[in-house]
Amino acid sequence: MANRLMFEKPLGMRDTLPFFYNQKRLVRESLSNAIESWGYQFLDTPMLEYLETVGEASAIDETQLFKLLDQQGHTLVLRPDMTAPIARVAASQLKDQGFPVRLAYDGPVFRAQQIEGGKPAQFEQVGVEYIGEDSIYADAEVIALQVQTLKEAGLDHFQLTVGHIGYVKGLLKEIFGSDQETSELFLRYLYRKNYVGFRKALTETNISKEDQERLKHLLSLRGEEDVLSTAKDITKNGACHEAIQELQQLHEILESYGVTEYVSYDLNLISHMSYYSGILFEGYAPELGSLLCNGGRYDQLLPSFQTEASATGFAVRLDRLVEALQQQNVSNNRTLLLFDDSSFHHALQKATDLRGNGTRVVLQHRKNIDEQAIQNEVFTNVIDLSKGGAHNE
Amino acid sequence: MANRLMFEKPLGMRDTLPFFYNQKRLVRESLSNAIESWGYQFLDTPMLEYLETVGEASAIDETQLFKLLDQQGHTLVLRPDMTAPIARVAASQLKDQGFPVRLAYDGPVFRAQQIEGGKPAQFEQVGVEYIGEDSIYADAEVIALQVQTLKEAGLDHFQLTVGHIGYVKGLLKEIFGSDQETSELFLRYLYRKNYVGFRKALTETNISKEDQERLKHLLSLRGEEDVLSTAKDITKNGACHEAIQELQQLHEILESYGVTEYVSYDLNLISHMSYYSGILFEGYAPELGSLLCNGGRYDQLLPSFQTEASATGFAVRLDRLVEALQQQNVSNNRTLLLFDDSSFHHALQKATDLRGNGTRVVLQHRKNIDEQAIQNEVFTNVIDLSKGGAHNE
Repeated sequence: MANRLMFEKPLGMRDTLPFFYNQKRLVRESLSNAIESWGYQFLDTPMLEYLETVGEASAIDETQLFKLLDQQGHTLVLRPDMTAPIARVAASQLKDQGFPVRLAYDGPVFRAQQIEGGKPAQFEQVGVEYIGEDSIYADAEVIALQVQTLKEAGLDHFQLTVGHIGYVKGLLKEIFGSDQETSELFLRYLYRKNYVGFRKALTETNISKEDQERLKHLLSLRGEEDVLSTAKDITKNGACHEAIQELQQLHEILESYGVTEYVSYDLNLISHMSYYSGILFEGYAPELGSLLCNGGRYDQLLPSFQTEASATGFAVRLDRLVEALQQQNVSNNRTLLLFDDSSFHHALQKATDLRGNGTRVVLQHRKNIDEQAIQNEVFTNVIDLSKGGAHNE
Repeated sequence: MANRLMFEKPLGMRDTLPFFYNQKRLVRESLSNAIESWGYQFLDTPMLEYLETVGEASAIDETQLFKLLDQQGHTLVLRPDMTAPIARVAASQLKDQGFPVRLAYDGPVFRAQQIEGGKPAQFEQVGVEYIGEDSIYADAEVIALQVQTLKEAGLDHFQLTVGHIGYVKGLLKEIFGSDQETSELFLRYLYRKNYVGFRKALTETNISKEDQERLKHLLSLRGEEDVLSTAKDITKNGACHEAIQELQQLHEILESYGVTEYVSYDLNLISHMSYYSGILFEGYAPELGSLLCNGGRYDQLLPSFQTEASATGFAVRLDRLVEALQQQNVSNNRTLLLFDDSSFHHALQKATDLRGNGTRVVLQHRKNIDEQAIQNEVFTNVIDLSKGGAHNE
């Protein structure tokens, strides 16, 4: 092989070297422990799915899918998320268990990148799916568990922003009526968090001054619980009032869970153009410039697998959580135990004893190791049992 | 979606449901602990690699590769093994650390299946790569660690069969000289373990009666350590004698490790047509009809990444190891704690206490759960704090 690509990886693909690997594993274990302690059951699904089933049911834009043809002529996709595959499993193999089911996952998902922009094309998500219950207790449990997982992973500062798709859509429908195109336009500005564009588009509509004011007001409906009653006051719309009532009930339950200090509200939150159907949320950490986790209620997915069941869940970006926790110390102590032909037996016995006591020991013939491998700081301790070696413990 | 594929997965793709997921995780943890205790460092590489680099360097036949085109026009492959990607990393990012390096991995690899034959197209391998040392101590360490990992995973009965590619190739070269085509023919019979074909082909060669006998003898060179001296006696070939000497030294070191009861020898073992360059081995468990693990020395891979370094390693098929361990008990106790609106606070307090003591608790509103989900045996304990519920602990 003589090739300019020799050491390269495909666009957006990354290696996980030992230091980061160990950090990730530690964080993954904390998240799993918290999730399992709440009775969720982990499962896994294959990396490849059919485009026409799970691929199309997923919330991810088709341009982001890695596609390939199998030998039967079907188009396959590398799974872009875990929610759609888990819906497939819940709607088939797990259906007889009775609902609700509480499921969890931890694994890589794939999103093709168009340009070299530093975004990973493969990343790991840890998440839960609470399937088969549409009560506010289910929404609250998922949000409380989201808080619990992040705390148990060691994250001290983070904020979950909670919204309700029913409120935004209700208000837009009240104002624009059957003009779905204009509703979608404003929804899209919110989805892109383009508030300048939103305001500009407002001046180009022919709606009443009062409705313009209400939509401007929508943009400021962010903050603590009291924003909910303000949001209620600007509309008499039944769908909006229902959404606010759900959020108020949610808040009450979250108070019981003792997690409200991590929660705020944002009535113009739209995490996806079509996926969510009720309460939804996004999580941020001050150390990160991007989304740490998100979740919410998605009641239309299971029906697309012929199963009448609502669902809610969350997903954490493991790489970003590790980044937010950067400072944490992962112990990776290793002892280097050097031997020569005459001291092998003795060295092996010593290595076995040390390993038995939980020490990680590299047992190494003295003549086969590069000096730089001894000198650099990959080992915390060097014991030299070779002839002439200083016995340095 | 209304689709006959709706609940289907692509050929050879499987879901891992909670019970098997938990079993796998437990086994994976035992293997990792053993591997890390010997100072190996885990890392991960992406699922996708370039065909022309890692894809071509891998030991897997091209017909088994899942291929796709990226948006830059390069052909990508789903990694068919972990050895080639790790060689890429060792030859680039890790090169400055100094050799040897002891690396480990745990993750899915992909092999496209042509027919529905029950073979998985994605399976998980746990393995090690010991890179940058060609001493017999390195071969011995990898084999001893292979034994150690299987024992720590709880496998009592298994056998590692050890061979040496240098012996077989030396003998074939001695007999067929420059007739590489015929040598390859016999090598291929051995690779396919087609001993009937091997014997038949023997009768069709024009080699001496004595050489025919020696090749027949090769087929019976299997057993305990004494087979090594028998193997030595049938040839005066230098390459063969060198191979036998290596195996005898190996045996001596394995005696120090105390693992020889798990090891036997097979001088006609060929695990791959071209990959291995020295000592190699395969592991079997009596419960399994197929290969549990394999490994050996591969000295040509790193040079194909412009790095002069020999290497040895092993890979365990995690799914098969779990199958061989089938009987083991994975505790997956969960308590179902039922509440209604009036008892939520009380129930939440109780759930928090129980979770704090390590119990996995599903906290569930009584009115939102199917009767069958309570009746079937997914919960080991049911506590009903809803009105009218029997408080049944």
